[in-house]
Amino acid sequence: MLEELKQRVFEQNIALKKHGLVVLTWGNVSGKDSDTGLIVIKPSGVPYDTMKAEDMVVVDADGNAVEGEYRPSSDLPTHLYLYKQHPSLGGIVHTHSTYATAFAQSGREIVAYGTTHADAFYGNVPCSRELTEDEIVNAYEWNTGKVIYETVTDFNATPAALVKNHGVFTWGKTPEAAVEIAVTLEEVAKMAHITEALNPTAQKIKQPLLDKHYFRKHGKDAYYGQKQELK
Amino acid sequence: MLEELKQRVFEQNIALKKHGLVVLTWGNVSGKDSDTGLIVIKPSGVPYDTMKAEDMVVVDADGNAVEGEYRPSSDLPTHLYLYKQHPSLGGIVHTHSTYATAFAQSGREIVAYGTTHADAFYGNVPCSRELTEDEIVNAYEWNTGKVIYETVTDFNATPAALVKNHGVFTWGKTPEAAVEIAVTLEEVAKMAHITEALNPTAQKIKQPLLDKHYFRKHGKDAYYGQKQELK
Amino acid sequence: MLEELKQRVFEQNIALKKHGLVVLTWGNVSGKDSDTGLIVIKPSGVPYDTMKAEDMVVVDADGNAVEGEYRPSSDLPTHLYLYKQHPSLGGIVHTHSTYATAFAQSGREIVAYGTTHADAFYGNVPCSRELTEDEIVNAYEWNTGKVIYETVTDFNATPAALVKNHGVFTWGKTPEAAVEIAVTLEEVAKMAHITEALNPTAQKIKQPLLDKHYFRKHGKDAYYGQKQELK
Amino acid sequence: MLEELKQRVFEQNIALKKHGLVVLTWGNVSGKDSDTGLIVIKPSGVPYDTMKAEDMVVVDADGNAVEGEYRPSSDLPTHLYLYKQHPSLGGIVHTHSTYATAFAQSGREIVAYGTTHADAFYGNVPCSRELTEDEIVNAYEWNTGKVIYETVTDFNATPAALVKNHGVFTWGKTPEAAVEIAVTLEEVAKMAHITEALNPTAQKIKQPLLDKHYFRKHGKDAYYGQKQELK
Repeated sequence: MLEELKQRVFEQNIALKKHGLVVLTWGNVSGKDSDTGLIVIKPSGVPYDTMKAEDMVVVDADGNAVEGEYRPSSDLPTHLYLYKQHPSLGGIVHTHSTYATAFAQSGREIVAYGTTHADAFYGNVPCSRELTEDEIVNAYEWNTGKVIYETVTDFNATPAALVKNHGVFTWGKTPEAAVEIAVTLEEVAKMAHITEALNPTAQKIKQPLLDKHYFRKHGKDAYYGQKQELK
Repeated sequence: MLEELKQRVFEQNIALKKHGLVVLTWGNVSGKDSDTGLIVIKPSGVPYDTMKAEDMVVVDADGNAVEGEYRPSSDLPTHLYLYKQHPSLGGIVHTHSTYATAFAQSGREIVAYGTTHADAFYGNVPCSRELTEDEIVNAYEWNTGKVIYETVTDFNATPAALVKNHGVFTWGKTPEAAVEIAVTLEEVAKMAHITEALNPTAQKIKQPLLDKHYFRKHGKDAYYGQKQELK
Repeated sequence: MLEELKQRVFEQNIALKKHGLVVLTWGNVSGKDSDTGLIVIKPSGVPYDTMKAEDMVVVDADGNAVEGEYRPSSDLPTHLYLYKQHPSLGGIVHTHSTYATAFAQSGREIVAYGTTHADAFYGNVPCSRELTEDEIVNAYEWNTGKVIYETVTDFNATPAALVKNHGVFTWGKTPEAAVEIAVTLEEVAKMAHITEALNPTAQKIKQPLLDKHYFRKHGKDAYYGQKQELK
Repeated sequence: MLEELKQRVFEQNIALKKHGLVVLTWGNVSGKDSDTGLIVIKPSGVPYDTMKAEDMVVVDADGNAVEGEYRPSSDLPTHLYLYKQHPSLGGIVHTHSTYATAFAQSGREIVAYGTTHADAFYGNVPCSRELTEDEIVNAYEWNTGKVIYETVTDFNATPAALVKNHGVFTWGKTPEAAVEIAVTLEEVAKMAHITEALNPTAQKIKQPLLDKHYFRKHGKDAYYGQKQELK
């Protein structure tokens, strides 16, 4: 079932590796089938070298196994929480990509220093608070979804969040869009790090330029790319 | 029409990717046909993996569509402005390459710390002022060309500029030369960043050494390479 | 003899290169055959490009040559010392991977700043004291094993150590597990370096989150991956 | 003539690219034929993609053309000067590799912080003084050789030097050995940079450990690798 979505989710998991966002098996991509509400996600801890499209796991919105011989990624409950809160999401990505994760470890948001950032994110990318001990001990992965939901005001304008001391989650209308955001986030995190080294008092991009770049790619008056599509 | 130039512009767009200057579809190369004055440029937002030479877009000096089924890069007006101001230009490149863009985000010029820099640039590579709100809201890409023109004193001696909070533009007699400059700029930006970390009081290269390296590759007494050619 | 283990040790030496942990011939992997107690290790100074599985050297627990036409890695005595102290070890890796070695050169432990670290290490990865002049002059490589043994309290919880001014040793139940740890160590060292640049007062991960991530992958209640296996 | 040496010099020029030490055409390798004293060197400014072994240029010890249709590298006089001073040299390399060149631009020697460094260099790698204006204007490349000669006390113990504001020269008994040193130098430069960021008061490796690592690979009691050979 859902062979096409399994193929796409598989390819996007491989894309994480190709883009250098994933070391060993750290990271996962899921996709949601809008008709059935079923979710396809990477199996847990399977090496990328031997992973195949048919190894993808299918679960329902509550995480019950529907198809697949492997256990789903242990981060599945985080994905489930976000899909429940935002029914329009069609893809979610989790990585420990190097620079973005360093921001998460330093407990800092990624400041929007330039148009590379503004092309994808309408403002800084926030970093969550720490989970409480209780949130960690009980239903940790589900609570990770909760703390992301609490951290991000507008899931369209800010399609990513850092989880403190942990890593990165990104999302979009499709798995492909969520992976693109993950690639972008790592690159703007690296640029922000170098920017601050070059100029410790570097300032956030001014609002008119942020508006210009964000809205030339997103929203009703977008004129970047070949057609206007919501992402 | 202009099949050879389309092939060359296509190949140089691919070269940006190969040299690691471009993530996803960020960046574009154009070339000008000196006979007709027509300009060939990358289409907007088309993935590099599937892009073909015939997808390149042909426009006239005012940006009117002449051939091609895709929209041209949204940065086209910046290219047009610079081609108008400097008729001898035959190629222009725009990237968000990591280290050079970090300099742009930090609002700083790239200091000529060594001969690697002096082989390509006769002095520091400047960073533009911010565009005004009016320049951003109305004809943003055209005004980006204007601010580059305002920033660079000598387009031969300084074949590149940083645009504040944005990215990089480079140029040359040909698309190939402009891409070489983009590669060089990113490398000298990275070296400059590390140089400053190693020695916060590092000094610009002395004038005689700057002269020596710049003029052994450029100008009438050049003796680097296999023949003397203006670049 | 031990053809399968030689193949595995060979492949893991190649994997060090593939993962970017090794420049030229710097680094080595060994594996122990649990039945015979014999140890298979990379030959010394043989280029990776031409190395073959049959070039692996077989020695006994005291380092006496058992099979192989080449000299074993000059770091063999370090491996031998650790195998003697911890009979459950099945694989040991030595690298000079860039960021982890920079920590070793700076004489600092790698602080557990996040879950990427906690997934593999139950706490900071320590850096050894300097060897004394006597330890260096007499039986240097054997004494390197001693100082690692002295530095690490729990070889299961901390499957790696930095040797001051030198490099990295990692270990595990198998050569494959030891290489995975070497990959992880380099990545968390890089992340820790960037984390400290972003936030000089960044704090170690809190104990409950360290516990959560370490124990969801290790120990009797592990639920990450496809089956519970000791590593 | 000298077809075998041309092939080796060609391959080592390509190796510079493969090891990531060279951007575009920056860098060159030469080799000396010990029987005839003739020198084989890369042609100037020829792209690596299309360069062939037969494009290598043969000159005599004074730089007179002996064979080859291309101009030799413009850095040839630096090579000639060093070959004259040290007849035992069989290969010389010039690069602008990123981290080592950043040290040259910062005017600093590369401190021997660890055994990775000590395996190849018996102490810090020095950075030359600036050339005088007269040395730059007249016979610049020849004087670059002079200033390297002036900077390095022992060409065996220190097979590399940084030239201030310029780049890197390395050497050895063969072109292959000189390229290995160039690879090592770039890596130890990168490690030294990170070491200083991690610990601004990091100390040079202690003498006994420097001695141990240098002499276990070099000199009459060497026991690293498969046979004792002078490099």
